[in-house]
Formats: sequence, structure tokens, C-alpha cells
Amino acid sequence: MKKTQVGVLGATGAVGQRFVQLLDGHPWFELAAVAASERSAGRTYGEACAWKLDTPMPAAARDLVVRAVEPTLDCGIVFSALDADVAGPVEEAFAAAGCAVLSNSRNHRMADDVPLLVPEVNPDHAKLIPVQRKRRGWTGFIATNPNCSTATLVLALAPLERRFGLKAVAVTTLQAISGAGYPGIPSLDIVGNVVPFIAGEEEKIERETKKILGKLGSEAVAPLAAIVSAQTTRVPVVDGHTAAVFVTLGSDPGLEAVRDAFRGFEGVPQQRHLPSAPVHPVLLMDAEDRPQPRLDINLERGMASIVGRVRACPLMGYKFIVLGHNTIRGAAGASILNAELLHSEGLLEHVRSD
Amino acid sequence: MKKTQVGVLGATGAVGQRFVQLLDGHPWFELAAVAASERSAGRTYGEACAWKLDTPMPAAARDLVVRAVEPTLDCGIVFSALDADVAGPVEEAFAAAGCAVLSNSRNHRMADDVPLLVPEVNPDHAKLIPVQRKRRGWTGFIATNPNCSTATLVLALAPLERRFGLKAVAVTTLQAISGAGYPGIPSLDIVGNVVPFIAGEEEKIERETKKILGKLGSEAVAPLAAIVSAQTTRVPVVDGHTAAVFVTLGSDPGLEAVRDAFRGFEGVPQQRHLPSAPVHPVLLMDAEDRPQPRLDINLERGMASIVGRVRACPLMGYKFIVLGHNTIRGAAGASILNAELLHSEGLLEHVRSD
Amino acid sequence: MKKTQVGVLGATGAVGQRFVQLLDGHPWFELAAVAASERSAGRTYGEACAWKLDTPMPAAARDLVVRAVEPTLDCGIVFSALDADVAGPVEEAFAAAGCAVLSNSRNHRMADDVPLLVPEVNPDHAKLIPVQRKRRGWTGFIATNPNCSTATLVLALAPLERRFGLKAVAVTTLQAISGAGYPGIPSLDIVGNVVPFIAGEEEKIERETKKILGKLGSEAVAPLAAIVSAQTTRVPVVDGHTAAVFVTLGSDPGLEAVRDAFRGFEGVPQQRHLPSAPVHPVLLMDAEDRPQPRLDINLERGMASIVGRVRACPLMGYKFIVLGHNTIRGAAGASILNAELLHSEGLLEHVRSD
Amino acid sequence: MKKTQVGVLGATGAVGQRFVQLLDGHPWFELAAVAASERSAGRTYGEACAWKLDTPMPAAARDLVVRAVEPTLDCGIVFSALDADVAGPVEEAFAAAGCAVLSNSRNHRMADDVPLLVPEVNPDHAKLIPVQRKRRGWTGFIATNPNCSTATLVLALAPLERRFGLKAVAVTTLQAISGAGYPGIPSLDIVGNVVPFIAGEEEKIERETKKILGKLGSEAVAPLAAIVSAQTTRVPVVDGHTAAVFVTLGSDPGLEAVRDAFRGFEGVPQQRHLPSAPVHPVLLMDAEDRPQPRLDINLERGMASIVGRVRACPLMGYKFIVLGHNTIRGAAGASILNAELLHSEGLLEHVRSD
Repeated sequence: MKKTQVGVLGATGAVGQRFVQLLDGHPWFELAAVAASERSAGRTYGEACAWKLDTPMPAAARDLVVRAVEPTLDCGIVFSALDADVAGPVEEAFAAAGCAVLSNSRNHRMADDVPLLVPEVNPDHAKLIPVQRKRRGWTGFIATNPNCSTATLVLALAPLERRFGLKAVAVTTLQAISGAGYPGIPSLDIVGNVVPFIAGEEEKIERETKKILGKLGSEAVAPLAAIVSAQTTRVPVVDGHTAAVFVTLGSDPGLEAVRDAFRGFEGVPQQRHLPSAPVHPVLLMDAEDRPQPRLDINLERGMASIVGRVRACPLMGYKFIVLGHNTIRGAAGASILNAELLHSEGLLEHVRSD
Repeated sequence: MKKTQVGVLGATGAVGQRFVQLLDGHPWFELAAVAASERSAGRTYGEACAWKLDTPMPAAARDLVVRAVEPTLDCGIVFSALDADVAGPVEEAFAAAGCAVLSNSRNHRMADDVPLLVPEVNPDHAKLIPVQRKRRGWTGFIATNPNCSTATLVLALAPLERRFGLKAVAVTTLQAISGAGYPGIPSLDIVGNVVPFIAGEEEKIERETKKILGKLGSEAVAPLAAIVSAQTTRVPVVDGHTAAVFVTLGSDPGLEAVRDAFRGFEGVPQQRHLPSAPVHPVLLMDAEDRPQPRLDINLERGMASIVGRVRACPLMGYKFIVLGHNTIRGAAGASILNAELLHSEGLLEHVRSD
Repeated sequence: MKKTQVGVLGATGAVGQRFVQLLDGHPWFELAAVAASERSAGRTYGEACAWKLDTPMPAAARDLVVRAVEPTLDCGIVFSALDADVAGPVEEAFAAAGCAVLSNSRNHRMADDVPLLVPEVNPDHAKLIPVQRKRRGWTGFIATNPNCSTATLVLALAPLERRFGLKAVAVTTLQAISGAGYPGIPSLDIVGNVVPFIAGEEEKIERETKKILGKLGSEAVAPLAAIVSAQTTRVPVVDGHTAAVFVTLGSDPGLEAVRDAFRGFEGVPQQRHLPSAPVHPVLLMDAEDRPQPRLDINLERGMASIVGRVRACPLMGYKFIVLGHNTIRGAAGASILNAELLHSEGLLEHVRSD
Repeated sequence: MKKTQVGVLGATGAVGQRFVQLLDGHPWFELAAVAASERSAGRTYGEACAWKLDTPMPAAARDLVVRAVEPTLDCGIVFSALDADVAGPVEEAFAAAGCAVLSNSRNHRMADDVPLLVPEVNPDHAKLIPVQRKRRGWTGFIATNPNCSTATLVLALAPLERRFGLKAVAVTTLQAISGAGYPGIPSLDIVGNVVPFIAGEEEKIERETKKILGKLGSEAVAPLAAIVSAQTTRVPVVDGHTAAVFVTLGSDPGLEAVRDAFRGFEGVPQQRHLPSAPVHPVLLMDAEDRPQPRLDINLERGMASIVGRVRACPLMGYKFIVLGHNTIRGAAGASILNAELLHSEGLLEHVRSD
């Protein structure tokens, strides 16, 4: 099978590097183009990129010449790791030019006609794509994945919502420094410290969670009628967002039923054996002191939400801990799984082929 | 004024060292005896103690000979930093022998006739002391201070409970490593990591908070009829427990009234100008990214709860961040303030004088 | 080919876990027995071992019943990760009972008739094995690998010594916490800190380096006549010892020749394609700020010394930085490579087969 | 006594903040002006400065209006914490306009007619000031203090050089993140990591050490004829540079004499009781695992070099560990002590008074 050529926008940043890493050896997609800011354009990726991952830069990427972020790239599928301050119009230009844009940026996530996809949770929201194309007159389209902490949280909430209904969520996150990109957080702010604030993050969790778990209507998603309240903090961990979650369900099923819901959860990616799909999108750990980012973040290749300490809560019903890899399932891996979902539904065939 | 001689039990451990540090130069109390395990007894404190604080060991303590933990110590007031696995019977023996025992250990905190004191919050609970003496036939007594994370939390809840009533609390803590003593947490467990479990800690927060905020009856305290639910985690911070708190109040006073309640809070220690009393037992910070342990932990000499990010919560009403120094206000400093309160009420005069 | 059954002594500790991890899927060896202290014996490895590595415990190890550390184990080859305070007589008993003991412990490293092997550097020192057997009347034998920081250093010194001669070395190490085992370093000692002392470490580096680079005589090794001086520190890094090295060579070959010596270095493991052999036992990095433990420690699967910043030194001639994985090339991986070397020379055939 | 008014250039940066902190309550100097980049000018210091120290911003500084960095400031003595890319001509302009410029920047340190002062070590180098004024036609002058790691090192080398002569130094540093300013080191580069490179740092140590220990001639300093070789690394420590030092002395005095030299060292600041002078400019610790940055950095209010682990070196003669506070004795505190020295010699009287 000939692989589909794909590009990465914002390829030299922290999330862009993760895209390049995860696409290396991908069975369906082949990295054909990397694009970044003017400063990098024209140099090879090997020269332009200060690689910060703990595996070597893929050989196939090293010699690619970094291109400007313009829709003249020779590929019909682009993954966007662009900064939010430039992603808006750029992604629209790519979609207008016929590209399928799989975006990790926040800019279009909440637009009515843009799907905010988590393939195990709301694959049907992909039906917004034809709506979007028609409304905007685009030959391409934009599909988005959630914010990193939302991605981890929503995967753990979905099995509960599906089986028991979900009425309320209070969540406190302990987020890794890689979530802020590079250079990101100054070390003087975080070594031996906690910063109890991440700009815009609480709003994203509260808003995106309800859209993802919402019901698809004819032209938009009706958000889930649950209340979500978040507090977000930064901690000196390299990779892996941890969240302490309190939930009120639609019924009171008992602890074992809740654990069963986590254990038994799966969706379209598992059924179709998509290449990046985790075997268990929610992995339940039994040990009383897990999950922990340093030990558990690479389970299921970083594509699962790792749940532990599921127990009764005297206030809200249930409480638990969830951990996810913020730059894999929380960013680049999520976009790639979205692309695999759309590919498996034939939705990538209509985009520009070069 | 001649100073009152005091002793420290468990003086070589992490909390014991903090007692020794805080008592140095105390205007009312003078460190006269240090006691520790058999392994240390007989050596000087300077030899026996692996001092881990970032100020030099007080000269007056260095040459004290470490004594065995037995009620033959020559002082009528002892601060107990004993491990919970030995504190129970030992503290009782000291109280029976006529000593005032100011204990940081968990063993007697929940006993009906033992006050669990926070001087700004429930100074009247000291009235349990005569009850305790009578019931147990002791000439001395035991008074306790709360667990480290409870200490920080309850000081921030008290102004809300006092003004508006308190119905529900959901709290997630991010606790410092010094809270586990020395050697405590192995570095392999916490460098670059989060451990989402601290044995017994959630139960202590849920239980102790309600007793401290409860109403004193004739022979015991009726716990506050609020629901408290906690999740506790350990993070790689040296000193300072941070907590993300969601609260439901008895009324809906509005954000400014909540902030005013924090700002205006004070109690007996402030009115009586007790030596260790903070000027502001609750210190409200306005910056959106504060409080932070590395920057703010030493405000008010570690004796205040530092509150920030007070905002409305769509689920519970209000949410905020609170930070406290876990080995000062959360341990040794709390015990010393308790002693100052009791001293100011004449309750230390009846203990054995040597 | 039927795999050779092997055992691991001290299997539940930090280095023991690394042995179990590295032996999983090994093409020549199969983990057949795990032994540990009395406390663990009789339970399954899954129950007895607090697994601290960031890959899951191998399924094949999980159900092995932990045995007591006695030479009745059913395998002729044992890897020893025993603590130095018990390793001495235990390893001797295994060797006397006919076992090949591949030891990571320090106890026998400096014995005249025990080889201290680094397969790329001194494979001929394996000829001490028949000397040892004869002298001690053993049917088995003991072969050792160096201390973790020595292992990293000596691999980088060997190419220089081989080509130019080596007269003097001054080295300062920055060592990872995993080098001290588990529980090992208390977190209060190392979070945000440097500890400029590691008991016995400097002596080991100074002594072992000279034996490894020494010349094999008929009954013992004559240590290299170079002067080695070390200072060792502990830093808050999980895995990976870094060393800053100053060297005086036997000649003044110029920077390019020194770099070439590093680049071109190889030995018996590479020539025989031993399973655990790195392609480049010394990997030279060009970037001015490398190697770094977080980014580079897994290069060559942790089996190489990563060298960078090679430059002229106004005092000693040359200076450079070297990084190595302290629990792989510095411990378990080193022992396994030694076993592969001895296996490739037929030296494991004579041991007891069960 | 009326205090002398002083200004701080670059007052909002990491070192600038330390100047503001240390000048608060200074017995001789009073902070009268703060200057910073255009971006900050016109706002109050409280608004313009993201204060990163763990003590509150001094009340007296909070309301000062930040001025542009121009020699129209109303004070004749300015401390410069300017970035090296702007400090050169700016400091010259201030000196030409009649100001005494006490500079922490590297720009003029190596100029023949600019003293690089360490008051305990080379107070006589202040005699370059009249030379400088005459040669450059300035009414003011520039005096500099060394680079942060040099400051710590040279204070420990001075007693050895003074008593025994100094022939060679090999030093490896483990430097704190605060040494790189704010935002400085990205957290992704240093959490759980070591970076074995600091741009320009090794050259500064090698060069400045020899000038400071050099002999003052009529118009310039003849650098010490010793060989100094440095390797510099960055570690995840907030404050405190540690260095592992190997030295060859002019004689072989024996360990006790070396220790005595450290213990007995003092200079002009101690003799004149300058306000910022440490009692012991070199503080010798006996414990085998000290000094450590987290525990010892605030000894002598951060103004001493803390020395430990003094022992014989088989290669160079002696080796030891030294620790210093990089933003106090290594930066702002050093400049202030220089000002105190010059003030005590009457050299500040000739500058412009406003």
C-alpha cells in the first residue's frame, strides 16, 4: 500500500516534534513536509529544530527542508501544531485550499461546524465535516482534538457518561511542563515549586469536555448538560498530566460497576484496529499509589488514560485519579488518531491529492 | 520574666528539628530537654541529630544531652513530635505524670476529651482539658494540633464557616516531601514525579476539619455537619502544602464578601499578640498565579494560610487555592501557638513545675 | 537454539529489576530463577517486588516464585545484584557450587584472581577465570563488572589509552539517584540540591579504572601506571551519570586525533555482534551542550558512553564530558555483556548445567 | 548619618531584584532610583517587576517609578545589573557623567584600567580607579565584581595562594539556575537533567581568576602565573553554585595547614567591619557530605565561600568542594561589598553628588 503523504505545521516546536516522532514508521502516513516560522524556513529540519525528545530525530525528517507555513505545501493532509496566535487564519487558508487540517490548536475547537473529536468517544461528530465544507465553501476541512488536560479527562469520563450518565465534575490537574511547549515555563518558576495557574486552561476543560460528550444535532453539537469545574496547576514533571477527579453520576451504580465501566470501555479505534489506537483506552490500575507520571506515562504508548484510586466520595459519589501523556494522547497522538479515524471512513480521500 | 522550661520529644526527627529551631529565642519558652529514641539517647543533640534545616542548629541545643523518652524529663511542658507508632502510650504517660503535652501526633486528636486546637478557630475547645484531667485522673493533659494539610485548610475554611456557614468541601492537596519526615519519601519515588496517594491523609483531613470547626458540648465536640472530601498527592516540593479547594457555603454572599471574610479574619492569638501569632492568619494574595510554595511559604514566618485565586465555581459556589507551611503552621509552629494560647489562659500553671 | 537458563540474585532491588528487564526477550539467556532476601522468598516476583522501572514488569518474571539466595537454584549462571554487605560469601558459595557468577557487587572486583571485565576494553582478563578456579578449587567462578561511574569513565578512557597512552585523569561526577538503589537517597537530601559526597565512590573509580586498563600477567593484573583522581557528587537526575574529565595523554596527538579515537573505538563485542553490544561503545556528540542525561541516556540502548565537548585543556591536555546509563552499562547491562563475552568464548559451558 | 543615595540599573531582572533586596535597610546606602528597559520605564517598580525572590518586595522600592537607563538619574552611585549586550556603552556613559558605577556585568572586567575587585583578596586593585579616570577623562569610574562562579572559587583560592602560592587549578562547577537570570533556563532543559555547557563561563573563570589573584602594576594588573582550567555545568538547583576543585600549590604544606589557611582567612572587609562583610569569608565545614546548596547557601548571609571535603589529591596535591551564593556573593552582594570598600576608602566622595 502506498502511504499517504502528510505535512506538519509548526514542526519545530514541542508538539511539532512529537508529530514528527510519532509519524516515523507510521503504516499509513508518510511525513513529506515540515513547515515552520520564517526563521526556520529554508534550513533542513535537522538544522532548524532544537530537538528535545529522548529518542533521536528520525533520519527521514532530518534532511527535509523546512517550508514556510503556506498552503502550497505538496500534501493534502496537514497536522497543525501551530501556536494559537497564528493558527486561526492559517488553518482556514489550508482548508480553503483543499487540505484536511488535523489541528491541535485551540482556535477552531469550539466553532459550531468544527468537530472536536476523540475517536473512542464521539466519532459521529465527524459528520460535522460536510456541514463545515458546505457552509464555508471549502474543499478541505478542519478537525480538532481537545486540549491536553481535557483529552485525558474526557477519555475517563466517557465510560461513566455512557453507562450511568454524568451530572457533575470537579477536577484539579497537576500538569507537566512539556504542556507549555519550549522554551515554555522558566525553570525558576517551577523547580521545587507548584504554580497554581495556567492561563485559559480551566475554561478549556470546562467547555471542551461538554462539547465532546455532547449530542450531535444537524448543524452543531448540543453540549452535555453537566456541570464541570476545574482548577489547574503546574508541577515539576516533564511529561504526564495527572488529575484528581470528583464525579456525580446519573445513578449510583456502586464501585464495582464504575470500575467495570472503566475496564470495559472501548470504541471505534479498537474495533477497527486503527494503528495508533491503544488496546485499552482507559487502563485501570489497582495499586493504591498509582498512576504516577514517571512510571506509567508510557503505558499503551502514551495513548490511554490511566485511571487509579477509584473510590466512593462522601460528597459527589465517586472520586479517582487519572493520568495521560500530554504531548501524545493530549496532542500529537490525538491528532494522528483523528486522522486514522477519518481515513478509515474514507474522509481523507476527498482532500487534495498532490 | 523567667522563661518556662520546655522539652521536645522526638527531637531529632524532621518535626522535632523544627521545634528546636522555632523555640530558639522564644520569649516565653526555653528549650531545656530533648528526648529521642534509644539510639540517640546519651549523645549530645549536635552528635545525634542529622540536622536538615537551612538555618544552623541553635547553639543552645547543640550541647544538650539527648534523653530517653520517659516522663522523668525535668520539664512540665513537652512538645511531642513522636512517631504515631509510639506516641500513644508515651504521651499518656507524660500527661499522667503531670506534664502538659502539646502533641503533633495523630494518636489522640480524635479522642472525645482531647482538644484539637487551632487558636484562631476554636480556642474554646481548650475547655476539654479539665474534662480530660478529671475523666482520666491526670495531673497533666494532652492537647493536639491538626495534621499538616488540615491545618492549612481549616484556617482558610474558618472565616467562611464563621460568616456564611459551610456545607461542603472538596479539596485536592499537592503536598511537600518534608511532610513525610526523614528519610521519608525515597527520591526515586518523587523526583520528576507525582505520587497520588498519602496513607491515611484523606481520612485525617475529612475527620479533623469537622472536629475543629465543630461545636463544643459539655464533654465533647459535635463535629460540623458539613461534608468534606479530600484527594491527596505528593509533589517534588521541599516545604509547603498547596490545596485546591471547592466550597459550598451556607449562603451565596458574592465574591467580594468571600474575599473580605478572608482578609478580615483574626482570632484570639492576634488579639492577645501571642508571640508566634501571624498578623494575618489568612493572607489573601491578588496575583493570578499565587500563592506558590517556593516564593510565598515564609510569609508571616510560615504561620499563615496563604489564599489566592478566589473565584466563583459553577458547581459548588466558590473555589480557591491555599498554601501553608507544613512543618511550621502544619506542625511545630501550631503546637507552639497552642502552648502560647494555653499559657495566656493560665492553663500551663497547673502542670508540674521542676 | 535452546536458551541457557539464568538466575538473578537480589532480583527485587533496583539493579535486580534492571537485570529482569534486560533479560526479557534475550536471545541467548532465559530468566529461570529469581532470588532475594528472606522477606521476599516464597512470594511471586510480582508480589514481592516494588517495580520502579518505567516499562511494565515482564510477564515471564511476574509469576516466578522468589527463592532464597542459596546455591541450590536450578541454574548454572547467576547474575548478582546483591548488596555488598551480603554478596561476599554468597557469591563464593555459588561459585564453589559450580555456578558462573556474573557479579555487579564490589566485593570481589579487586581480588587478584577475579576479572574485572569490560568486554570492549580488557576481554583478555577473562583468562583469570581458570587461574581463579584452580587457586580456589572451584568448579564455577566469579567475574565482575565495574562500579557504575567507573564503567562510564573507563569506556571513554580506553580509546585514549590504547592509541596515545594515558598518564593522568582528574574526574568529577554528577551521579543519578538510581545509582543508590531503592529506597536509596531520601528525597529531602536531593530535591533541588547537590550532595558532594558518595561513600566509597571516589576510591572505586581510582582503583577500578587502573585495574581494567591494566596489563594481564600470569596470575594477576598489573594496574595501569596512571594517576586517577576523582570527586563524586549526587544530583537530582533519575538515570544517567555525567562526568567532567580532564586527561593527560602519553602524547599530544591534537584534538582531531582524540575525536577520531573516540569515534573509531570498538572491540570484541562489536566484532562478534554480541546481543547487548552497542554499535558504538563510545558515541561522540558534536552539539556544544551535549550529552545530557534526560535526552541522551537511552542512545545505544543505554550501553554506550556518550562523549561530548572534547576540547583542549590548558592544564592537562584535553577535557571532555561523558555520560553513561548507570543501571544499564553501569550495572545490569554490563554484567549481561560480560556473560555474552564469556559465552562466546565457551567459558559458560563448563559450569553446572541443571 | 545621612545615607548615600544609590540607584540600580537593570533593576527588574534577577540580579537587579537581589540588589533591591540587599539594599533594603542598608546602613550606608539608600535606594533612590531604579532604572530598567523602555518597556518598564514609567511604571512603578511594583508594577513593572515580576518579583521572584522568596522575601516580599521591599516597601520602599514598590512605589519608585522605574526610570530609563540614562545618566540623568539623580544619584552618583549606581549598581549595574544590566545585560552584557547593553552594559558596555551605558556604563561608560554613567562614568563619564560622574557616577561611580559598581558593575556586575562582564563587559569591562578585563579592561586594563578597570579593577575587578574582591575586597578580601585584592583591595589594592582599587588603585586602578585614578588611572582609569585620568586615562579616560572621566569624573566617575567603573569598578567590577567577578562572574558568579569565579567569585565563589577565587575566595577559596585566595588563602591558598596567599600562604602557599598557587600553580594550577582544575575546577568543575555545578551551577544553579538563578545564575542564568529570568526567564533564563527553560524548565524542559533542566528538570531532572544536567546541561554540561554554559556559554562563555569557562573562559570567564579561567581569565578572571588570574586577574583577581594577579599583581597590581602601575597601570594594569599582571595576571597570576597559574594555569586554570574549568568545566561548567548547570544543575536543577535554585540558588548556589557548587564547584569541585583540584589544586596544585606552590609548596606541599600538608592537609592541616591547608585547612588552617581556609579557617584563618580574612581581609579588609572583616578588619573594617564593612556592613556586608561575612565574619568568615571562607567557612570550613567538617561533615563529610557538606557543603550542600539547599542547606548551606544562606550561611554568612550568602556572602561566604563554604568549603568542605578538603583532602589530598594523588594527582594535583589537594582537592575540595566549594559552594557560594551565586546572586549574593556571586553578584549583587559582591557589588555592594565593593561599594562599601570604596566608601571606606573615601573613593565615593569624589563622585557626583545630587
